[in-house]
Amino acid sequence: MDSVKFLLPEDRIPKAWYNVVPSLPAPLPPVLHPGTKQPVGPADLEPLFPMALILQEVSTEPWIEIPEPVRDVYRQWRPSPLYRARRLEHALGTPARIYYKYEGVSPAGSHKPNTAVPQAYYNKVEGTKRLATETGAGQWGSSLAMACAFFGMECKVYMVRVSYNQKPYRRALMETFGASVTASPSSETDSGRAILAQHPDSTGSLGIAISEAVEVAAKDASTKYALGSVLNHVLLHQTVIGLESLEQLEMAGDYPDVLVGCTGGGSNFAGIATPFIGRNLEGKAKTRVVAVEPAACPSLTRGKFAYDFGDTSHLTPLVKMHTLGSTFVPPGIHAGGLRYHGMAPLVSHMLDLGLFEARAVQQLDAFAAGVQFARAEGIVPAPEANHAVAGAIAEALQCKEEGVSRSILFNLCGHGHFDMQSYIDYAAGKLQNYDYPAEEIAAALAGLPQV
Amino acid sequence: MDSVKFLLPEDRIPKAWYNVVPSLPAPLPPVLHPGTKQPVGPADLEPLFPMALILQEVSTEPWIEIPEPVRDVYRQWRPSPLYRARRLEHALGTPARIYYKYEGVSPAGSHKPNTAVPQAYYNKVEGTKRLATETGAGQWGSSLAMACAFFGMECKVYMVRVSYNQKPYRRALMETFGASVTASPSSETDSGRAILAQHPDSTGSLGIAISEAVEVAAKDASTKYALGSVLNHVLLHQTVIGLESLEQLEMAGDYPDVLVGCTGGGSNFAGIATPFIGRNLEGKAKTRVVAVEPAACPSLTRGKFAYDFGDTSHLTPLVKMHTLGSTFVPPGIHAGGLRYHGMAPLVSHMLDLGLFEARAVQQLDAFAAGVQFARAEGIVPAPEANHAVAGAIAEALQCKEEGVSRSILFNLCGHGHFDMQSYIDYAAGKLQNYDYPAEEIAAALAGLPQV
Repeated sequence: MDSVKFLLPEDRIPKAWYNVVPSLPAPLPPVLHPGTKQPVGPADLEPLFPMALILQEVSTEPWIEIPEPVRDVYRQWRPSPLYRARRLEHALGTPARIYYKYEGVSPAGSHKPNTAVPQAYYNKVEGTKRLATETGAGQWGSSLAMACAFFGMECKVYMVRVSYNQKPYRRALMETFGASVTASPSSETDSGRAILAQHPDSTGSLGIAISEAVEVAAKDASTKYALGSVLNHVLLHQTVIGLESLEQLEMAGDYPDVLVGCTGGGSNFAGIATPFIGRNLEGKAKTRVVAVEPAACPSLTRGKFAYDFGDTSHLTPLVKMHTLGSTFVPPGIHAGGLRYHGMAPLVSHMLDLGLFEARAVQQLDAFAAGVQFARAEGIVPAPEANHAVAGAIAEALQCKEEGVSRSILFNLCGHGHFDMQSYIDYAAGKLQNYDYPAEEIAAALAGLPQV
Repeated sequence: MDSVKFLLPEDRIPKAWYNVVPSLPAPLPPVLHPGTKQPVGPADLEPLFPMALILQEVSTEPWIEIPEPVRDVYRQWRPSPLYRARRLEHALGTPARIYYKYEGVSPAGSHKPNTAVPQAYYNKVEGTKRLATETGAGQWGSSLAMACAFFGMECKVYMVRVSYNQKPYRRALMETFGASVTASPSSETDSGRAILAQHPDSTGSLGIAISEAVEVAAKDASTKYALGSVLNHVLLHQTVIGLESLEQLEMAGDYPDVLVGCTGGGSNFAGIATPFIGRNLEGKAKTRVVAVEPAACPSLTRGKFAYDFGDTSHLTPLVKMHTLGSTFVPPGIHAGGLRYHGMAPLVSHMLDLGLFEARAVQQLDAFAAGVQFARAEGIVPAPEANHAVAGAIAEALQCKEEGVSRSILFNLCGHGHFDMQSYIDYAAGKLQNYDYPAEEIAAALAGLPQV
């Protein structure tokens, strides 16, 4: 029997995270202070983050050592399995070889603990008592809640209201881990109250929830802020996904011709992709890298690469990224983790450099792909991950059409156990596609800050 | 760093299931025909099961080969990990060494696919078009639904009504795999209609749902019946759990002084325990084996070892087992998988032979243990598994009191991702304990059939 599952032993958990930044042909555009429009320094970020993470944020070292206490926690689920999707290949009738890296084996069910654990660890070491954060679908919030439980810290989560209502069990998971969870926009913060005054029925957005969490951290010296995506250090921590995949594909005697990941803030995509992009840049490989985003929130395919705020209330620094405008509130699609107006600056920069391509997938196509995957492979993907599944299936069907066998790797970033309402709604025909007229995108982009 | 996770490679999936029956000091009491009260033969079971499973049911071979197509599917999640619960040990301050075998890594989230896959396989080989079954909490139903999807068969599930209402997402999981799910008691069957006529508000029970599924299979030649626990062949398939654990503990350089499993129908318990009980019987070890059941459904600790029906409508043969009476309907506790009036005949027989001990745990204690486990280990256990966690924690605290380090192994048979409502109810103080007056148990037992 050929293998379907490629496992690495515990001692092959990467000892260092991979930083693609020094290998890029052009440096990252600087992060700007929202008032002065001048580049921010580490000191500007100190109210929000521990210094170890700030230094990672601006690091130009290619490798950053993973602390042993972090690897110690990683060991519970890492190295995560890499699967050959033989039953899916059979169901599709494709000559393609489909591999998926499965991050749903973490106790929180997604890739998010890869960064939640080091973020909690560095904060603990530097004396932080409490972490505040936002969460969309709840994958990030539950991961940080778990990491805080492991390191004995408090955790305060602002959960985007549409997800708070759609996913009570994600909230229950966070609370089981001991976290305090509030629907955002809330009346607990100035940012939340300002939104509610204007839009009492706001379903919320990641941008709004970020404002609330940042505000709480900025006002309380014992509380720091933790972000689940977008920032360089978050993307860095996720590179364990790609680094392990490289080794596992070597075990399989294969190498990806095509790599697919879904993008919301960009962290799971960067996590699996940057080690492969690094090899492309070194001239060692020619993997075609594809980011798949929801058509309902198309920052990479229809946004503008420009300086913008990371949040809705404009508390964050200005970063250059693919953005739909910080006031853009995406519809309440079930892939809550992909409902972000912007995109990680590093991912945006790499797209601008032509290091990967981006495409958008409609919600109904994403769910159709997820159901097909579940019936073949048994794993019900998270709605976010369905976008990667849809991208990989499209590539596999292209192979079938061309009659060629390519190797396709995608990141199955999480399971859908907490997202079953979305499958119920999909089966009941309650979900819809989204397509914005050009004027609507243009209007959202018209409000971008002048830099 | 000491290991926390013991993984076996794919080729160490057991090649045979272990059958403890021939090693027992006394033979299993025969299964009796409900009309004649004479032992049933293989032919009597043919309307319900494929012959391969019937032969396993009565086998006295110590090892039964696992077909390659079954091992092929097992490979997706097997061998499952064995963990050393170091963070839990630390939280308890115990000198005990706590290990848990984690069956929640299967795509359906529990140990149930270990038998769902071979049952679907043998049925497929013998030409069955559709499988009918019952499910309590939904772990079994979703596992069989998944297995049927893999082998291209239809699946019809009667889901105990209390769980159907409590766990809509389990139902959605089954439907995502393509199964048809009906709340039981239903008006689709004579058995269901008879119950509804007497008790229109019935919350259902496994016994009732079994009646409905058996009736459907008996009346339709292309449909067979599949049971998720209780029967010898089901327990047999689960022995992969214990067999892998033996190897993994050898990797850890340890051997269990105490083994703990939770019991509903008995399959996950027998699956982890019988390979160790076999070694006890061979004089190679002296592991103390403990079964933990819910105080709300105390078949082992308060039931009678007697001939009884496996279902409520008395369609099944008579089996000798620890039972609370086939008309006993347990309260709607969240550990739906443990709400069965009886107990596997093999498990009952082994208790009668003194090969293990049994204790009952109250619902609130089980959830307290589950929350403590989740905060230490990250995994939120299924309510059923919380009973095993509570049992293991009690043993670990006993070690602490005695100041001795014993090795404790327990089976964490599934995760609680689909059971978060139970954690919400627990946190809200809505759950209660159950303690039956002796007269109530006696009254239930008074109706046992005369054999």
